[in-house]
Amino acid sequence: MAKIRPISGFPEFLPQQRIVEQQALDVIRHVYELFGFINLETRTFEPVDVLAGNGDDKEIYAVSRLFADEASKKEAKLGLHFDLTVPFARYVQQNKGELTFPFRRYQMQKVFRGERPQAGRFREFLQADIDVICENELPLYNDIEVLQSLFTALYCLHDQLQIPAAVVRLNNRKLLEGFYRGLGITDIASTLRIVDKLDKIGAEEVKTLLVKELELSQENADKCVAIAQIKTHDLSFVEKVRELGVEHEMLDEGLEELAEIMDQLQAYKARNFDEDIKADIMVDLSIARGLAYYTGMVFETFLMGHEDLGSISSGGRYDNLASDEKTKLPGVGASIGLTRILSVMFERGVLAPTKKSTADVFVAVNNMETRIKAQMTAEVLRIEGFKVEISSKDNNLGKQIQVADKKGIEFVAFYDEENPDSIKVKNIVTGQQISAKVEDLSKVVEFVEQQND
Amino acid sequence: MAKIRPISGFPEFLPQQRIVEQQALDVIRHVYELFGFINLETRTFEPVDVLAGNGDDKEIYAVSRLFADEASKKEAKLGLHFDLTVPFARYVQQNKGELTFPFRRYQMQKVFRGERPQAGRFREFLQADIDVICENELPLYNDIEVLQSLFTALYCLHDQLQIPAAVVRLNNRKLLEGFYRGLGITDIASTLRIVDKLDKIGAEEVKTLLVKELELSQENADKCVAIAQIKTHDLSFVEKVRELGVEHEMLDEGLEELAEIMDQLQAYKARNFDEDIKADIMVDLSIARGLAYYTGMVFETFLMGHEDLGSISSGGRYDNLASDEKTKLPGVGASIGLTRILSVMFERGVLAPTKKSTADVFVAVNNMETRIKAQMTAEVLRIEGFKVEISSKDNNLGKQIQVADKKGIEFVAFYDEENPDSIKVKNIVTGQQISAKVEDLSKVVEFVEQQND
Repeated sequence: MAKIRPISGFPEFLPQQRIVEQQALDVIRHVYELFGFINLETRTFEPVDVLAGNGDDKEIYAVSRLFADEASKKEAKLGLHFDLTVPFARYVQQNKGELTFPFRRYQMQKVFRGERPQAGRFREFLQADIDVICENELPLYNDIEVLQSLFTALYCLHDQLQIPAAVVRLNNRKLLEGFYRGLGITDIASTLRIVDKLDKIGAEEVKTLLVKELELSQENADKCVAIAQIKTHDLSFVEKVRELGVEHEMLDEGLEELAEIMDQLQAYKARNFDEDIKADIMVDLSIARGLAYYTGMVFETFLMGHEDLGSISSGGRYDNLASDEKTKLPGVGASIGLTRILSVMFERGVLAPTKKSTADVFVAVNNMETRIKAQMTAEVLRIEGFKVEISSKDNNLGKQIQVADKKGIEFVAFYDEENPDSIKVKNIVTGQQISAKVEDLSKVVEFVEQQND
Repeated sequence: MAKIRPISGFPEFLPQQRIVEQQALDVIRHVYELFGFINLETRTFEPVDVLAGNGDDKEIYAVSRLFADEASKKEAKLGLHFDLTVPFARYVQQNKGELTFPFRRYQMQKVFRGERPQAGRFREFLQADIDVICENELPLYNDIEVLQSLFTALYCLHDQLQIPAAVVRLNNRKLLEGFYRGLGITDIASTLRIVDKLDKIGAEEVKTLLVKELELSQENADKCVAIAQIKTHDLSFVEKVRELGVEHEMLDEGLEELAEIMDQLQAYKARNFDEDIKADIMVDLSIARGLAYYTGMVFETFLMGHEDLGSISSGGRYDNLASDEKTKLPGVGASIGLTRILSVMFERGVLAPTKKSTADVFVAVNNMETRIKAQMTAEVLRIEGFKVEISSKDNNLGKQIQVADKKGIEFVAFYDEENPDSIKVKNIVTGQQISAKVEDLSKVVEFVEQQND
């Protein structure tokens, strides 16, 4: 084998870290299924013309056979998907005759971006998305359900895996576009692009750019910054926007949508969570989102105490991404950047996993010559549903218990060669143990359940 | 969005098919965890020099940035992994200081091969692998445990998902190599390659090729075919090989290993499965396996009644794949070609899934104006652990029940606007229903559990 080396930008977890990642995937899957989303996977390759124009084209990875023949050179140019929204929109369009709308799916797959690698930025990473796409019309309650599901998933990651609490920051593209149009601005995309830099370069620099690059009046530039600085935990943002004195039909629509979403999400939170949870949902009118395809609600999410990491979950409403000339297929979705969250939490020591095995029971081996006894002990425990690993050594039992301990397996089973009808199971943390007949291991099941409570 | 089209060789499942695939992944994960394997994922990209020489190099997909700059052109050439064994061996070598040996992992990821697409052959497909790698020495019981785990996983796929029963066909590379060496043959690789064609081109053609291409005597060619034709369900293969009158130390070693593995697997099967199960384990000395890195036990697996599909699960012992000058890291593993199995079973109608949702309960909506009532009904059911989807329409209840039925959701919940304290849950298959107070839904939990039994 060739000399091995890590490749920059392609993270790989150690077993104890992967166990946490798998727990996180299980939590997200569980929550999204509670909300009635079904799972889907799309192919990793897409034609380059499907990918291009929906993200940063410079980041697209192209694939080709290493030793391509003439025939394969004539094939369509293929690339690796850089997100899960664009492939999902393509899948829905392609299979629309087979799907029941509204089509609600979650999707957890690796995506690929040829970015310049830097802390918290990867070239291959796992995303966990939910989206709803509907034919013709997609009522606003879908935006709300997507955000409820996402908020709940992030809360469960916090509650069950000790990932920091998340704050979801909401905005609406119509609100911003309507506001800009009300000011007489026509180059919406450039205005959004510049205002999006507010956090990085500050208010004064943004104003300067708006005046210099887009030839906005100083007053208009001030207003563009003023609206972006509105952040509220309730519906008071509506009044604050109104105070800026801008009028436009699209602004009204955006304000109304955002107020409705915010109102319902706060009510959802109050109904379903303790009053003192740290996780929150707020309005932040500086949130613009980079991607061109968003048309309504947009959001970003930050982990408390780790805001410098940037958004760990974002998404929004896209009315035209999946639509074609014949069919309107509006959608709304949310994506969790799981690799990014976990790798930084590991790096910062917020998560420091030590459990290296998911086994429930470690079966000690008395003697390698009679290892078959341990094998048979493992078999009866597996029939009871226990995950079992068998020792690879027959050294003294204390040493074998140390191995189990090092792996984080809490129970060790021992068999007695003289008495093949029963086995002993010991909790190596509490020291408590139990002996049971092989034909009736219900005592062991009860014992382990009690100890785990 | 660009015109959409399927790409040949890249299968994508419909929601009802993906539900089956996910069930299959859950079954495999459950069995492999019962056997104490932990999960792992490796990066999708590998340096081309790690990939090359371990498979069919012509099938390797190379990746590069679509708009590569000068800096990126200088980066190491990268390709997509074509299996999970080569990346796993690289991972173990790279992280050996951090791992506890024997290191036992399962890995379920997509792999990529630039094959000419044909029925049952894909360019992107899901594999589910288990492997054990150990430092210095890897005792034979590991080969046996890998095969036990694999046999059990395939049995559970058959038992729980109605995938056809599997027959595992075992051989041993040392047995074949020792036999050939005993005959005085030195070009082992070419002999294996030609004998491997037995099924495709028949005995006479194989003999002709052995004589013509490798200049074997007619007697030796006959013997090479004779040993490949030995297939037994018990240990009688040992005597049949002995009857061919060839002597070699390596042959003895191979025979002994294969007899030990076969003996223990049959005993495992007798201890843990009903006598009349169709799944089986047999010796088939025609199994050679294409890959160069195998050094001991090798196997292939065929689905009963679908042998034409070829092997759906293969693997073996590789003593040197992960080893380098400093450390010996022998391994043994097994791989299940899940995409291949499922896509053919769907195509042949062996599996014809209709369930399009994993939700337990569908909440009907009386009136879109008061949809919040349905939302709150869903919330209390979710707290009880039910997976819940809310109707997207407020048309008559019969129509809404039809939607649930079409999706394969068995229970429909109704709320009464006049009586917000209780909800009604109906099994739409049996027609039975129950009413319960919102504060105490234990009756609903019991009802659903009873109906599901």
